[in-house]
Amino acid sequence: MEVLVRLPLPMTTPPHMTPDEFRAIGHRMIDWIADYHTSHEARPVRPPIAPGAVLGQLPTHPPEQPADAGEWDRIFDDLQKIIVPNLLHWQSPNFFGYFPCNSTGPGILGELASAGFGVNGMLWATSPAATELEMRTLDWMAELIGLPERFQFGDTPHARGGGCIQSTASDSTLVSLLAARSQARAAGADPSALRLYASKHAHSSIAKAAMVAGLAAGPDDTTHLCLIDADDTHRLDASALAAAIDTDLKNGWYPAWVCATLGTTGSEAIDPLADIATAIPPHTWLHVDAAYTGAALVCPEFRWMLNGIDRVDSFCFNPHKSLLTNFDCDCFWVADQQSLTRALSIMPEYLRNQATDAGAVIDYRDWQVPLGRKFRALKLWFVLRHYGREGLQAHIREHVRLATWLETQINGDDRFVLVAPRITGLVCFRLASGDRETRRLLEQVNASGAAFLSHTTLPDETGTDRYVIRVAIGGVLTQERHVRSLWHVFEDFAGS
Amino acid sequence: MEVLVRLPLPMTTPPHMTPDEFRAIGHRMIDWIADYHTSHEARPVRPPIAPGAVLGQLPTHPPEQPADAGEWDRIFDDLQKIIVPNLLHWQSPNFFGYFPCNSTGPGILGELASAGFGVNGMLWATSPAATELEMRTLDWMAELIGLPERFQFGDTPHARGGGCIQSTASDSTLVSLLAARSQARAAGADPSALRLYASKHAHSSIAKAAMVAGLAAGPDDTTHLCLIDADDTHRLDASALAAAIDTDLKNGWYPAWVCATLGTTGSEAIDPLADIATAIPPHTWLHVDAAYTGAALVCPEFRWMLNGIDRVDSFCFNPHKSLLTNFDCDCFWVADQQSLTRALSIMPEYLRNQATDAGAVIDYRDWQVPLGRKFRALKLWFVLRHYGREGLQAHIREHVRLATWLETQINGDDRFVLVAPRITGLVCFRLASGDRETRRLLEQVNASGAAFLSHTTLPDETGTDRYVIRVAIGGVLTQERHVRSLWHVFEDFAGS
Repeated sequence: MEVLVRLPLPMTTPPHMTPDEFRAIGHRMIDWIADYHTSHEARPVRPPIAPGAVLGQLPTHPPEQPADAGEWDRIFDDLQKIIVPNLLHWQSPNFFGYFPCNSTGPGILGELASAGFGVNGMLWATSPAATELEMRTLDWMAELIGLPERFQFGDTPHARGGGCIQSTASDSTLVSLLAARSQARAAGADPSALRLYASKHAHSSIAKAAMVAGLAAGPDDTTHLCLIDADDTHRLDASALAAAIDTDLKNGWYPAWVCATLGTTGSEAIDPLADIATAIPPHTWLHVDAAYTGAALVCPEFRWMLNGIDRVDSFCFNPHKSLLTNFDCDCFWVADQQSLTRALSIMPEYLRNQATDAGAVIDYRDWQVPLGRKFRALKLWFVLRHYGREGLQAHIREHVRLATWLETQINGDDRFVLVAPRITGLVCFRLASGDRETRRLLEQVNASGAAFLSHTTLPDETGTDRYVIRVAIGGVLTQERHVRSLWHVFEDFAGS
Repeated sequence: MEVLVRLPLPMTTPPHMTPDEFRAIGHRMIDWIADYHTSHEARPVRPPIAPGAVLGQLPTHPPEQPADAGEWDRIFDDLQKIIVPNLLHWQSPNFFGYFPCNSTGPGILGELASAGFGVNGMLWATSPAATELEMRTLDWMAELIGLPERFQFGDTPHARGGGCIQSTASDSTLVSLLAARSQARAAGADPSALRLYASKHAHSSIAKAAMVAGLAAGPDDTTHLCLIDADDTHRLDASALAAAIDTDLKNGWYPAWVCATLGTTGSEAIDPLADIATAIPPHTWLHVDAAYTGAALVCPEFRWMLNGIDRVDSFCFNPHKSLLTNFDCDCFWVADQQSLTRALSIMPEYLRNQATDAGAVIDYRDWQVPLGRKFRALKLWFVLRHYGREGLQAHIREHVRLATWLETQINGDDRFVLVAPRITGLVCFRLASGDRETRRLLEQVNASGAAFLSHTTLPDETGTDRYVIRVAIGGVLTQERHVRSLWHVFEDFAGS
């Protein structure tokens, strides 16, 4: 039997979406997102999800033909039926895990506008407005969080200091470390004698940056990375840092880089910046990782933790955590641009241009590891214009108020133990009845879908690591009733 | 005289955009983008822009108050009056600079959906659907470009190979280099004896990765990085590579990593992969950087350049260049996942979870330098579903057709010299009248705003570096008439 196969004619015109199709499907996507954000309470924060559940619903092979008239209907269907039921819903008002990852109207529209422009801001010359808007919004943000003027461009790119947007705080950690190494090398230090210092409660991205930079063979290699003990509130012990540096100097090491954390991931401990600043040698690069807590600096009542900032070489925090700006948006500042660009600059012929050659502009590719970069300043600009200083403060103060309320409940109930001072929005506690019970509480809450929590371990007063629940309050949609409901869940569990 | 100052009451509720406001402003932004993309021909590709022009139009200080009713009108005004006149318009049909940076309807809507979800896919557990959709779309893409099955997950995360989305090819270069170092270390190599190899025409991100990894003190440090000579079509000379490795081995070096470029930035030279594969020792990591040209592999007629792929350890290309997916989207595959994750994995307590502990899932944070990551698979999924294999092929073949047409004109006119073989969409030429004239042509075209071109230098047959114009054809909106107009501009100039 002969089978007749009708072969499609090869296409000569790519099936680009027409402007009218883009308008129609775009409006629909906007509405879909608005519906998604107004329907969180009708679904579990973390649905029951098994590995492979999504893979099993996706075709094994890619589509051959372009979309027909019904394909975008099917795409919206798949979003609803395959994606939504298999996501952890970070924007749910009942999401209290990790740290917040704020997504807002202005932030989403900034991402949209950036995608629409589709420019690559690697050089000033490839996107002047992208570069200059980023410079100005970073200056604005520096002012909003109370950073000294030496971290700002002001009216000239020839200023010594300035800021840029990195993808994450991990990237800021890495580039500050590379700048420190470059500075040490310029000072004549032996690259094999460099030492780096951070609290033992500092973020894992520090050990990872050391691995990337070739200063650690693995996560536990402390040849070059010295993790400093903490006090009983999990803050870096500045006298232990001073002692470690003293010993290292005597042994021929070169203290190249110190990271002070303002808000550790485990418990939001605030390292004593002023004490650290006086504990370190003049040539040592001092980086501040304020990834989470930095957002709260828009409120002057939290600026006490900036005491010591005049000694700081670089500083970062993530507006994509609690400051209403969609991921990815880490703000990173240096006091001396050249110390950074010396470590990262490279100029192939195909990127040469007059503005760069004249030294008249900032080329942000020299501030980061990748070459290409998005127009991320738009979303931050939209957020700052939409909220204004007062709106940002209101968001922070509201979640601090809710966290304080939860802290008060915990402190007033001896079935619960607050395990670290609450600073802004993170509340860390355990059950008095023991680690197993604390873990069971977390697992029960998460499995119920009523809320989502994450955990860590922290040493108790005897130095024993205990299982700890972290409640990070700061979601855009989180209101008082969600925190009250969470507390009732805790109470019910403890009483059972 | 007493001055009465009315202090604003502190806000208690953050001024979040309501769902209705989001719908209204969102629809307006969608329409604004559609209008932007349909109005490119009415404006210069590169407007006349002076450093500081944007800074000078932006307020020095951030806004204090939240947006009033008119603020979003002013934001749209500012987009039109401050941003648009000061951008290089990468999406213009007359943009032929650098490489394309495709922005499409499906790509933009993917970015929008991703921003709407606002999830952080650092772990499978923090975004199962994001992880599994990425696994599947990377398998699809591997199939579409003809990569062997060993680079795919198939139906299990326990497969040896697999892919992920990195931000840029620079990131792929860096992580493959880190994997190679880790592998060399595991094989007992002295980390200070590692040598890396690439063509002297390879991308600057290779020297930058060496700097980041601590294997180069600066862009010109060749202690560990060996740049290999090219043949007269600018392809890496595999016999020179073999000789360099031979000499290095005799001198106690450890050849750790080789990068083959499929499509150099300067001239789209295709390094001879099969010859490279046989020239290197068995333990050497072979990475392929196909950042630009990889997109053309959706068409079988270009797969000859994959000869040798069975020896390759990692491979990347950028759908955000010519494959219709918004920046950032670099697809990166490894043949052996563990060789990568061994170099990048680190597990703090606050990220521990059952799925990871059980080894049942892929945690993409172990495939990259940063911890946090976006739901970037959505935009790639939308693009693949919208275009299908045939639509992708049609896009590539159309721009290859236009580039071939331009090449033919240049070859038929002895005022112009084609300086490198045209492979897919990049046409490189100079004027027979000399470098100064070639540069003047580029500057005149770019200043006119009628089109935008970029340049490089390439050695001529005597080995002398010559100024070269690069015409990269592959914009979403670029049609035959735009390329014909460009050629007429070239002809007019040459005739004057």
